[in-house]
Amino acid sequence: MTKITLSYGSGGTLMHKLIDSLFMREFDNDILRQKKDSALLKVGNKKIAFTTDSYVVKPIFFPGGDIGSLAVYGTVNDLAVCGAKPLYISLGLIIEEGLDVKVLEKISKSIAAAAKKSGVLVVTGDTKVVEKGACDKIFINTSGVGEVYYEKLSLNYIKAGDTVIVTGAIGDHAISVLSKREGIGFKAKVKSDSAPLNRLISDILKVSSKVKFMRDPTRGGVATTLNEMVKDRRFGILLDEINLPVSEGVRHSSELLGFDPLYLACEGRVIVIVSHQDAAKVLKVMHKTREGRGAKIIGHVTADYKGKVVLQTLSGGKRIVDMLSGEQLPRIC
Amino acid sequence: MTKITLSYGSGGTLMHKLIDSLFMREFDNDILRQKKDSALLKVGNKKIAFTTDSYVVKPIFFPGGDIGSLAVYGTVNDLAVCGAKPLYISLGLIIEEGLDVKVLEKISKSIAAAAKKSGVLVVTGDTKVVEKGACDKIFINTSGVGEVYYEKLSLNYIKAGDTVIVTGAIGDHAISVLSKREGIGFKAKVKSDSAPLNRLISDILKVSSKVKFMRDPTRGGVATTLNEMVKDRRFGILLDEINLPVSEGVRHSSELLGFDPLYLACEGRVIVIVSHQDAAKVLKVMHKTREGRGAKIIGHVTADYKGKVVLQTLSGGKRIVDMLSGEQLPRIC
Repeated sequence: MTKITLSYGSGGTLMHKLIDSLFMREFDNDILRQKKDSALLKVGNKKIAFTTDSYVVKPIFFPGGDIGSLAVYGTVNDLAVCGAKPLYISLGLIIEEGLDVKVLEKISKSIAAAAKKSGVLVVTGDTKVVEKGACDKIFINTSGVGEVYYEKLSLNYIKAGDTVIVTGAIGDHAISVLSKREGIGFKAKVKSDSAPLNRLISDILKVSSKVKFMRDPTRGGVATTLNEMVKDRRFGILLDEINLPVSEGVRHSSELLGFDPLYLACEGRVIVIVSHQDAAKVLKVMHKTREGRGAKIIGHVTADYKGKVVLQTLSGGKRIVDMLSGEQLPRIC
Repeated sequence: MTKITLSYGSGGTLMHKLIDSLFMREFDNDILRQKKDSALLKVGNKKIAFTTDSYVVKPIFFPGGDIGSLAVYGTVNDLAVCGAKPLYISLGLIIEEGLDVKVLEKISKSIAAAAKKSGVLVVTGDTKVVEKGACDKIFINTSGVGEVYYEKLSLNYIKAGDTVIVTGAIGDHAISVLSKREGIGFKAKVKSDSAPLNRLISDILKVSSKVKFMRDPTRGGVATTLNEMVKDRRFGILLDEINLPVSEGVRHSSELLGFDPLYLACEGRVIVIVSHQDAAKVLKVMHKTREGRGAKIIGHVTADYKGKVVLQTLSGGKRIVDMLSGEQLPRIC
């Protein structure tokens, strides 16, 4: 009998297979079929965005963040990349018996601070406690509701020639979490990039009406996120390795551990596909923000490699960058 | 150092203490302060309800339901009792490595069937997989969004003389789950009452504009739910033991295990507080529905026992029915 393996949760090919073959089949409807980071729903005279994410990151505290702030920013970002202003979040806690109340307090304060920073309210919640050994310390689900203010985001608008931007160095979140993980732990002066992106995104959308699509490269990293975009499309993406922003710490740790930064999760970065004409303008706005000051043009959309992501390497060659297959890093978010 | 115990998740006094002393303090806002089953939010020209619940029930399959259908109905009901028409739900899965894909398929089919039965769409989701031993088989979070169509539900409208109705026999869900639990298992011909209540509730609200308040008695049972209603209020509730609907199976199992049915969780019942004048009319409508055919008037609101729930016992005496203190049954939902 087939068993669920860790790879099913990695964001890569097995997870996509599960989603397509099981969930999309069983729950099929027009909204789900859009496969966006948030569902877009019409309510009266408004369009709202609605999204959910569970967080099982291990360890629960890591350089630059913790499971609480991560749970807020992750959901805020899933709303923001769909052109919505994040407004409300829910909080579902599953706690292991024996967790220190002080730890729960610390996480709660972090959630409260993150919500304030993102401009959202925690409006509803639920707490479950399971016996020792039935979960690992604490798992957090946040769902979010936002109001859509920019409706022109769709993979269908992407054309050859469009510019691909990432808002900062990639892989910092994954490396920061792993550096503190029991049994793996290593020295790395890398802080998670975990951050709310709603203000950065609204700044961009104020100056350009030619932003075509956005997605935050979480599980599976930039490589997987870009592959999701090009899958079954009449375009591909050509990346320039020389322009990929990777911090010294991430580069060093990746070499040490045998990771490719393109597959490492970010939690405070967004990939923006924008018309070539507006790329410079958008980049300039990003550079003025705290979250986007490390933004870089990393490649462009091309008709040459339909359905593929291709990397122009430092050595001058080209190689295909596949979707993450199997497991790279479990419980990174 | 104080540790979280199972009692913190039981729905009883410790959970309320945690909510009041930590979550309400840290996340304080007007919407959260209403402490409703769903948050009521204004979006454009509409009011929406938004709610969340995580499900950790053990075992995941039980007579009359499973974790999948339970997760749908639970959230549908939290929307419905706030006067909202449930429309959309999200699905957050946390799966233990090693779960049979066939089990996940079975649960997915159950979710799909329950969503169809309730008239809601699964519009967004998330899947996490954790290593063996880091969670117990599968945990499910559902959040829900509905459109508010009846705005006159509030504890503030409740007055002495109002009638207290429950829509069917109590405790069936808890007993059905426990009867199949490893280490406890006993013979009981009791099926969970787990069911969607949105149609029953909309039928009631069509015939009466004098329904004051509704809540589904899940964790902590009828006793805890009624205590939440009377807490710090200028009224109390007097229950008639003779009218409490308890099935033969639940009565027998409760005696065997030393449970009080008043504290046993239901997942397909709702407590309705309605003006005395409309009680008969509402009851009649309930009796015509599948979910409400066992509805009973179980007591009334009284000015005599402010802030208290009091039971008129079969033997003619009166006793105070407190909120559940400590743990009765972990992982019942």
